[in-house]
Amino acid sequence: MTRIACIGLGTMGGPMAGHLLDAGHEVAVWNRTPDKADDLVARGARRAATPADCAADADVVVTCVSDSPDLEAVVLGADGAAAGMREGAILLDCSTVAPSTETRIAEALAARGCEVVDAPLSGGAEGARNGTCTAFVGGSEAAFAAVRPALEAFCKTITHLGPTGAGQAAKAVNQIIISGTYASVGEGLAYAERAGLPLEALVEALSGGAADSWILRNRSPKYISRTYDPGFRTVLHRKDLGIAISEGEELGLDLRLTRLIAAWQDALIAAGYGEEDSSALGRIGTGDVTP
Amino acid sequence: MTRIACIGLGTMGGPMAGHLLDAGHEVAVWNRTPDKADDLVARGARRAATPADCAADADVVVTCVSDSPDLEAVVLGADGAAAGMREGAILLDCSTVAPSTETRIAEALAARGCEVVDAPLSGGAEGARNGTCTAFVGGSEAAFAAVRPALEAFCKTITHLGPTGAGQAAKAVNQIIISGTYASVGEGLAYAERAGLPLEALVEALSGGAADSWILRNRSPKYISRTYDPGFRTVLHRKDLGIAISEGEELGLDLRLTRLIAAWQDALIAAGYGEEDSSALGRIGTGDVTP
Repeated sequence: MTRIACIGLGTMGGPMAGHLLDAGHEVAVWNRTPDKADDLVARGARRAATPADCAADADVVVTCVSDSPDLEAVVLGADGAAAGMREGAILLDCSTVAPSTETRIAEALAARGCEVVDAPLSGGAEGARNGTCTAFVGGSEAAFAAVRPALEAFCKTITHLGPTGAGQAAKAVNQIIISGTYASVGEGLAYAERAGLPLEALVEALSGGAADSWILRNRSPKYISRTYDPGFRTVLHRKDLGIAISEGEELGLDLRLTRLIAAWQDALIAAGYGEEDSSALGRIGTGDVTP
Repeated sequence: MTRIACIGLGTMGGPMAGHLLDAGHEVAVWNRTPDKADDLVARGARRAATPADCAADADVVVTCVSDSPDLEAVVLGADGAAAGMREGAILLDCSTVAPSTETRIAEALAARGCEVVDAPLSGGAEGARNGTCTAFVGGSEAAFAAVRPALEAFCKTITHLGPTGAGQAAKAVNQIIISGTYASVGEGLAYAERAGLPLEALVEALSGGAADSWILRNRSPKYISRTYDPGFRTVLHRKDLGIAISEGEELGLDLRLTRLIAAWQDALIAAGYGEEDSSALGRIGTGDVTP
C-alpha cells in the first residue's frame, strides 16, 4: 500500500484514481471542479481542499491535467502540490505536456528533494476505464521503481524509456503516428463508402493485412457511422501536435505530415468539431470539412 | 485438383504458382522472362510458349502482373490468354490495376463465355512466400466459388466484396491507408531517433496502444536501420496511388493525403529510391529527401 495523491480527476484521472483505490492504496483526491471527486470520496478517498493539502503525506503525487499551464498551476502555483510534498515524495505526472515544462518542474522539485517521473498515457478513455493504458515513462531508475505499483493499477503496458522527459518525447511520437493514421484511415474509408463497398466486411479484410492498425480495428465504427463521439478529443490531440511540432523544430526536424494534420484539426475546430474524437479527421476525407 | 494457368511469375506470381503446385493442382506457367519459370518447371509445372498456350485447357487462369497495360497485353494481346481460354474458364486476376481495366477485360471475355474475378492481394513478398496473402475479391458468386480453392493455396484471408471490380476498389482503400501510415510511422520514428529514445523498446511500447499497426510491427526494423530493401517497391505503390487518385476523382473525392504521399514518392523516385520498399517514406521524415 502506498499513500497516493490524485490531482486532476477528468476523463483519464477520475478512473485512474478509482483503480488506485481498488488496488488498496490510500488515496487523497483534488479536482478544480470539486464535484468530480464525489464518487471517489464515497468509495473511501480523502477529499483535499487544495493540491498542497492533497499532496501532504503522499508517497506519490499523481497529476493528470490537460495542458502545460494547468500542470504548472497545480504543482508550482499558490497552494500547489509542491508546497505540500514531503522530501522524498515523487511526482508522477501522467499529463501530456511539453518536455520543457516537465524539466522546469523537475528542477523546482529537486530543490525540495523530490523527483519527477513523467508517464504520459495512451489508450484513451476506454484505456483509463478498463485499466489498460500504455505508459511511456521517463525518470530515474529508483523513482520509476517507486511509482511502478501505482502505474500498474491502471496500465497494461509500462515502458521506461530514459530520464525525466523521455516519457513526453515518446508520447509525442505516439501522437505523430496516430495523427497520420487517423487521417489515412478516414480517407480510405471515405473512398470505400463512395465506391459502394460493404464497409464492415472490408474493415475485417483490411485488418488481416498491411493496413491493420489499432485505429482501423477500434475506430472504424465511428468513421462508418460518421458519429465521432470521444474517445480522445480533437482539441487535446491538436494541443499535443503543437508540442510535437515545436519540439521537432528544436530537434531540427520539420514534421511535414504532422503540420498538415494539425492544420486539418484547426479546420475541424473552426467548424465546431473540436470536442469530437480524433477520428473526426474522417470529416476531411469525406469532404464534410475542407481544410 | 484444378487445371490452373499461371501468367506472371514475379515476386508475387512465382511463389503463388509454387503454392498451387504444392496444393496438388495441375499448373501451366508463362512469364515474359522465361527463366523465371525454370524452378516451377523442375517442380512439375508445364512450360507454356505463350499466354494463349498457357491458358489452353485451364479451368482457372491466374494473372499477376505489374500494371494495367501488362494485363491487357497478356490477356487481350496477340497470343494472349483470351485466345486460348475455353468457354467457362475463369480469369482470376491477382494484379493491382485500374477497376476500369478490369471491367474492359471482363466485357471482352464475356463474349467468349468467360468470367473475370479480380483478387488483388495484400501481404507483400513475405505474404506470397508464406502463402498468407489477403485477397480482396470481386466477381459473381459462382465464379468466386470456382476460384476459391486456387486462392486458398496462397491466401490466409479471402473476402468477397462485390461484383468484378470490387476487389480493385478494396485494394485501393488498402493502398490509401498504408500510404499515410507508412509516412506517419516514418515521421514518428525520425522524431524518436532525434530525441534519443531507445527505438526497439519504444516500438514495443507503441505497439501496445493506439499507435499499433502492421507497419509499425513489421517495418520498424527498416526505418530504424534506414535500410529500405523491398518488401513492396515504391514505384509499384506509387502506381497504385495513381489509380486511387484518378478513381477517387471519378467518384467525386479529393484524396488530399494520398496526393501528398504520391508527391513524396515522386520525390523519392526522382532521388533514385524507387526500387526501395514503401517504408522508404521514412526518408522524408528524417530529411534525407526533401519533397
